[in-house]
Amino acid sequence: VSLIYERPVRFEEIDAAGIVFFGRFMSWSHEAMEHFFGHLPGGYVDLIVRRRVGFPAVHLHADWKLPFKFGDTIRIETSIAKVGTTSVTFRYDFGRIRPGGTEAEPAARIEHVCVTTNLDTMEKVPLPEDCRALFAQHLSNG
Amino acid sequence: VSLIYERPVRFEEIDAAGIVFFGRFMSWSHEAMEHFFGHLPGGYVDLIVRRRVGFPAVHLHADWKLPFKFGDTIRIETSIAKVGTTSVTFRYDFGRIRPGGTEAEPAARIEHVCVTTNLDTMEKVPLPEDCRALFAQHLSNG
Amino acid sequence: VSLIYERPVRFEEIDAAGIVFFGRFMSWSHEAMEHFFGHLPGGYVDLIVRRRVGFPAVHLHADWKLPFKFGDTIRIETSIAKVGTTSVTFRYDFGRIRPGGTEAEPAARIEHVCVTTNLDTMEKVPLPEDCRALFAQHLSNG
Amino acid sequence: VSLIYERPVRFEEIDAAGIVFFGRFMSWSHEAMEHFFGHLPGGYVDLIVRRRVGFPAVHLHADWKLPFKFGDTIRIETSIAKVGTTSVTFRYDFGRIRPGGTEAEPAARIEHVCVTTNLDTMEKVPLPEDCRALFAQHLSNG
Repeated sequence: VSLIYERPVRFEEIDAAGIVFFGRFMSWSHEAMEHFFGHLPGGYVDLIVRRRVGFPAVHLHADWKLPFKFGDTIRIETSIAKVGTTSVTFRYDFGRIRPGGTEAEPAARIEHVCVTTNLDTMEKVPLPEDCRALFAQHLSNG
Repeated sequence: VSLIYERPVRFEEIDAAGIVFFGRFMSWSHEAMEHFFGHLPGGYVDLIVRRRVGFPAVHLHADWKLPFKFGDTIRIETSIAKVGTTSVTFRYDFGRIRPGGTEAEPAARIEHVCVTTNLDTMEKVPLPEDCRALFAQHLSNG
Repeated sequence: VSLIYERPVRFEEIDAAGIVFFGRFMSWSHEAMEHFFGHLPGGYVDLIVRRRVGFPAVHLHADWKLPFKFGDTIRIETSIAKVGTTSVTFRYDFGRIRPGGTEAEPAARIEHVCVTTNLDTMEKVPLPEDCRALFAQHLSNG
Repeated sequence: VSLIYERPVRFEEIDAAGIVFFGRFMSWSHEAMEHFFGHLPGGYVDLIVRRRVGFPAVHLHADWKLPFKFGDTIRIETSIAKVGTTSVTFRYDFGRIRPGGTEAEPAARIEHVCVTTNLDTMEKVPLPEDCRALFAQHLSNG
């Protein structure tokens, strides 16, 4: 009931204060989400390009505990906090791995509520069945 | 008790679904915040580079109502939702202006809680007096 | 025969070395280009969205002299180095303005060769007449 | 005498024309460069953070043949085109892999001349010996 996405913080992701500003965590969340949809044949690409089903955000809540610096590795565990008829709440638990380390300290959590949307009409549509099944498999406990 | 930051959506800010993904709103919020600090002599640059006072995010809450497309203009009204001893909550009200239009439709609201931090020690510090005075002047009503 | 685009370096544009990495100059060039097309009715947006004419890059050459830091202002002078039948070469001359300064030191030059492309077929097309006229007006001397 | 870095094009990397604008190739080049320095103990992070040796760009030349869309995978082969006393020229050969495909079509080449720089003084310094040895091992033939 989870899925891990891991990669190093990149050189250009550091800000003028020498850490990573809050906006990057949204890009990282989206990367983890794209990775998560890899469980479906054709993945997120097929949803967007061929099936024209998108997941625009309607709400987002984020909490941070630890800053990220150059040299750290991001470890994101994606799960599903809630499934609705036309919506889904992704949860991203961020761990920070220090240079040379292996253990991930809890660093941030983001919850991201999306509405399933027909990208041609921009109207909301019911969750496709294969998405619903995938989300059900990855429901978080906490 | 507010401050307006306005600019067009840029070409590279559009995503594969043809709209603007949620992460860009964080960059836009930060731009509006940097603009807001223009009320202090030396602005945000002086805080970060010389005074070494930063504002890392600890919480964030966002709600979206309308998508942005290429050709739209972003209009952000920045205000202060709350001031603490070592923290401040920025509020960004996003309006969307359609191509050729002049009126801004309410499109999103982001609240962004920051902790005043010494960037050399990464420890929290009391809000500097000039920042506190600036925030007090721009407290939102709603 | 030129056009100025000016804005401050932003907080998130600084990299882990404390300066601005080379990729950002391309975003800045594109911003200056979008600004440049503001001389046409409907601007770059109308070209891309309604007329479906795009300008993908085929060659690029860049030279840097000075680094940019947080607090600096970018001043870009856009001109046209060359006009072809189905192509155009934009030239971006970057000036760096130090915090509190007014004068721009020459910091970089980028030349950017684009091919006029039908965005539906992705095939090259002759330069539209209004674009050709605009480019002719802004031919650089040097 | 080469090194491969491969990853999918991401959702937010698509522009308003539905392809990837030229600036992203610079971010991708830098990612490939960071990956390349993984051959040194501590990698690029150690160079930047502890040893304070950076590689600011002084020249760049790029040629594009094929556009990238959402669903494509980038395959970058990094090699060294030239080594100087205080400079190095990285070469990035970009291949495009179509969705579901395995073969990479030649899509772009970027050459990127950097000057070895002391990040505290911002003055140029001789190439460190371990960097020189690494570059010598990966000299390109063409």
